Amino acid sequence: MIKVVFFDLDDTIADTTRLAEMARKNAIENMIRHGMPVDFDTAYNELLELINEYGSNFPRHFDYLLRRLDLRYNPKWVAAGVIAYHNTKFAYLREVRHVRKTLLKLREMGLRLGIITDGDPIKQWEKILRLDLDDFFEHVVISDFEGVKKPHPKIFQKALRIFGVKAQEAVMVGDRLYSDIYGAKSVGMHTVWFRYGKYANREEEYREYADHEITDLLDVLKIIEVLNSGKDDSNKKVHADR
Amino acid sequence: MIKVVFFDLDDTIADTTRLAEMARKNAIENMIRHGMPVDFDTAYNELLELINEYGSNFPRHFDYLLRRLDLRYNPKWVAAGVIAYHNTKFAYLREVRHVRKTLLKLREMGLRLGIITDGDPIKQWEKILRLDLDDFFEHVVISDFEGVKKPHPKIFQKALRIFGVKAQEAVMVGDRLYSDIYGAKSVGMHTVWFRYGKYANREEEYREYADHEITDLLDVLKIIEVLNSGKDDSNKKVHADR
Repeated sequence: MIKVVFFDLDDTIADTTRLAEMARKNAIENMIRHGMPVDFDTAYNELLELINEYGSNFPRHFDYLLRRLDLRYNPKWVAAGVIAYHNTKFAYLREVRHVRKTLLKLREMGLRLGIITDGDPIKQWEKILRLDLDDFFEHVVISDFEGVKKPHPKIFQKALRIFGVKAQEAVMVGDRLYSDIYGAKSVGMHTVWFRYGKYANREEEYREYADHEITDLLDVLKIIEVLNSGKDDSNKKVHADR
Repeated sequence: MIKVVFFDLDDTIADTTRLAEMARKNAIENMIRHGMPVDFDTAYNELLELINEYGSNFPRHFDYLLRRLDLRYNPKWVAAGVIAYHNTKFAYLREVRHVRKTLLKLREMGLRLGIITDGDPIKQWEKILRLDLDDFFEHVVISDFEGVKKPHPKIFQKALRIFGVKAQEAVMVGDRLYSDIYGAKSVGMHTVWFRYGKYANREEEYREYADHEITDLLDVLKIIEVLNSGKDDSNKKVHADR
């Protein structure tokens, strides 16, 4: 009997990849508009390289961009980048298609809901609150707050303990085969791989850990119905695809 | 002959005190709305004390607020505070009354314009860009970027060097008697004390350094006209007021 459904946040609940790309492009455009003497492609590619090396949570992207482009430091350009980045992030933050419908339906079906996500706790909460989705979730488990990251079993075990349920009573839905699916499976949860965004065709070496694969979140409802009716034949699906 | 007019930024160009107060109140309200178990007055007064002790640029106000209130850390509440604070800042940032009219008229009169301000360079540029005022100013001199703060003569001398003018060819307009007026006077600039915001009746021990006192920025125009007509009798005014 499934009692709890856990969701990953980025690119499962919040449409983050598309948003980040748009925000970065607008940042570069605004820096150039305020006098940064570089063409768009050079600056944008340099920014992508930088993010690749330093990670997307590095707080000094625009400073470092100027250094990499051999430009003198100019707080005006950095401010122009920051403004455009934030404006875009606030204006274009969207939930993934069918999120709200799915969550609402799951709650109507009596399921309890949680989020298990990596990332900066304040930034992750900011997305949940800005999307007005917090009332759907009983608990949000954020790895940087707990001190352990997905796919480490501890973060999933912690989530199970918080809800007071067994692994086989929980489903994990996420876009990352490695951190979400492999991680949740390793503690014994049911797993649903949401093939969406830039990881839709990546990390396939962990595909065997996905009990189900979906491209529309509403399909979570059917999976739960089947699991709770006792007619689960889901494992066949994954192997049939290979 | 006056050639350059320098303005302070906070509470001379950008209406910051009122904005900060509104942003802080909204932050506390949103934290309480998302479950922080404290009443508004307790939390708001604690926040003001904290800002008083750690300064307004301290980046961890909301974290520390929870500690001071003996509450366990909760990133959801911090995120709620951050969101409301930023939303307010972006939605309510205003220029001080008559700023744009004054700047436009000064440019029409052939004056060159600059800003001399303290504060974080990126945040200061952010205000200028969000207010769309950057085209009016030839140079923005920010103390945290130059490594020296108002009222140190160096920051004013630096501004004069950048513009290539003598002190007696420049006017400084600002709301702070100590940092703006005393500082600018110490290098020999003409000074205009803009009595506005929370410093309208403070630091009066430096009042003798103000050549002029105004409560409407448009009065800068008359002062420049008089100075450039050679009929300057402004020093009398200050003493007449005492």
